[in-house]
Amino acid sequence: MKLLSFKYDGKTLFGPKVKKEEAVWDVQKIAEAVGVQNFPESIAEGVASGMDFVEQIRNLCEQARVHEDMNAFKYSYEAIEWLSPIPRTPKNVLCVGKNYADHASEMGGEGAPEKMMIFTKAHTAIAADEQKLSVHENVTNQLDYEGELAVVIGKGGRNIPKQLAYDTVFGYTIANDLTARDLQAERKQFFLGKTLDGSCPLGPYIVTKDEIPNPHNLSIVTKVNDDVRQNGNTGSMIIPIDEIISELSKFVTLEPGDVILTGTPAGVGKAMDPPSYLKAGDTVKVSVEGIGTLVNYFE
Amino acid sequence: MKLLSFKYDGKTLFGPKVKKEEAVWDVQKIAEAVGVQNFPESIAEGVASGMDFVEQIRNLCEQARVHEDMNAFKYSYEAIEWLSPIPRTPKNVLCVGKNYADHASEMGGEGAPEKMMIFTKAHTAIAADEQKLSVHENVTNQLDYEGELAVVIGKGGRNIPKQLAYDTVFGYTIANDLTARDLQAERKQFFLGKTLDGSCPLGPYIVTKDEIPNPHNLSIVTKVNDDVRQNGNTGSMIIPIDEIISELSKFVTLEPGDVILTGTPAGVGKAMDPPSYLKAGDTVKVSVEGIGTLVNYFE
Repeated sequence: MKLLSFKYDGKTLFGPKVKKEEAVWDVQKIAEAVGVQNFPESIAEGVASGMDFVEQIRNLCEQARVHEDMNAFKYSYEAIEWLSPIPRTPKNVLCVGKNYADHASEMGGEGAPEKMMIFTKAHTAIAADEQKLSVHENVTNQLDYEGELAVVIGKGGRNIPKQLAYDTVFGYTIANDLTARDLQAERKQFFLGKTLDGSCPLGPYIVTKDEIPNPHNLSIVTKVNDDVRQNGNTGSMIIPIDEIISELSKFVTLEPGDVILTGTPAGVGKAMDPPSYLKAGDTVKVSVEGIGTLVNYFE
Repeated sequence: MKLLSFKYDGKTLFGPKVKKEEAVWDVQKIAEAVGVQNFPESIAEGVASGMDFVEQIRNLCEQARVHEDMNAFKYSYEAIEWLSPIPRTPKNVLCVGKNYADHASEMGGEGAPEKMMIFTKAHTAIAADEQKLSVHENVTNQLDYEGELAVVIGKGGRNIPKQLAYDTVFGYTIANDLTARDLQAERKQFFLGKTLDGSCPLGPYIVTKDEIPNPHNLSIVTKVNDDVRQNGNTGSMIIPIDEIISELSKFVTLEPGDVILTGTPAGVGKAMDPPSYLKAGDTVKVSVEGIGTLVNYFE
């Protein structure tokens, strides 16, 4: 299931993509029409019940398809404003640093860290697919892209054993971990260079985990103005997803709706000769196999 | 005004300390009794209106004092469970690294950074005054204290000029920026070593800014089991509060209820000879002049 958050008629809603149509179901409206009580008001709220939430949505859509008001329950893509599927994470977005050997190497310095390195991006950085984003020229002239696979946590927890890690995953989406390289370097701690408003586009939707049985064999491609810059595969991650979740949950309680960025492969602008950073007018597309493409325009 | 969050009869409430009594007003209950509509449901919600919120609370307490049910509107300290005044910040708690020269020096390495360094602690780390906290012996054997003055943001904003920075402050509280030194060092980015559950006690209450005209002349003392370890003054901060807010808001949108930790003076356990870390059975008290004392017990 492809699950998206969107605005329609001024309201923030969510629902699954309608199969074979460029449209989305308004699943809260269906729930109300068929008399389901206490239906979640956002994806972040629903994911706490994991795959049961997906099953519930599936049942509602089946009922909608045979409902006399069927067409009132779906909106075409043109009628909606896309939002990030998780517009507001419960804590800052959690990011694994240098998790592809080729990227760790191109960044110079000490290469890949011996132990998992985590930094964060505030929810004020989260942006949607197709959103126009600032290059923030007042604070940086080295804004760079990093295409990444993002994991959306469902149930969450603490001290999650590796064997049970996938039970806590709700699904996957795409992220662009936009980074001001000058700030990242001169501020020592990555946070300020990683958290500029709009520097964490997420989307276009969450693909639920049942549709991605192996998240470690997906091509990941980043294009700047149709020029292929990153062309990797999620199979090259140094620390795989189950280990990221298990290790992270030793130190921090994972909550429903938390988002983890799993690192970026080689090919960032900083590593080009000469380095090439984003400028107003650029379009960046991050595609992950089995999920889709996240597009943002810079101004 | 000293404003606290607390649990009473299973409900999460807030209100100001009753003057000259060890008691708190239930300000939501007063608002209901005197017919005030749409009163904020938490301190984090109320601070968005800045000092108007303080004025509104003051008026409600004056009405309570002459109300026939006066005693039903206040609870003694013994009847309540203390919570952190902001139990859940909108984004991770924002922390300024190495902001006292004597602490930057005792930590070795490069000393104080040339430019403001920021790291974060997730809201899952926030704890209350008097709360028992784990020393997390399963992941660290170097848990250390850092007594700090914490700033609570009211209105928030972006690109806040230094001259207007104090307009965005709602008040002040005390923090203990508990840090797992081993994790902090070996993980490069500070986040994992700074975010263990309970590693950000905040409290006991917020003192509103009208009661602290100069936040840069307050003694700050940290005791471990009545042994004075840190004895500094907020006047020694390298980057003062107005500059922290102005600089930070260039990179990240500040929101009502955001909390900024302003750094710790010299005297941490890591810098002792030999280093001395927290162990089960220890009590840590952080006192800031004009605010009070934040106490936590380790187990």
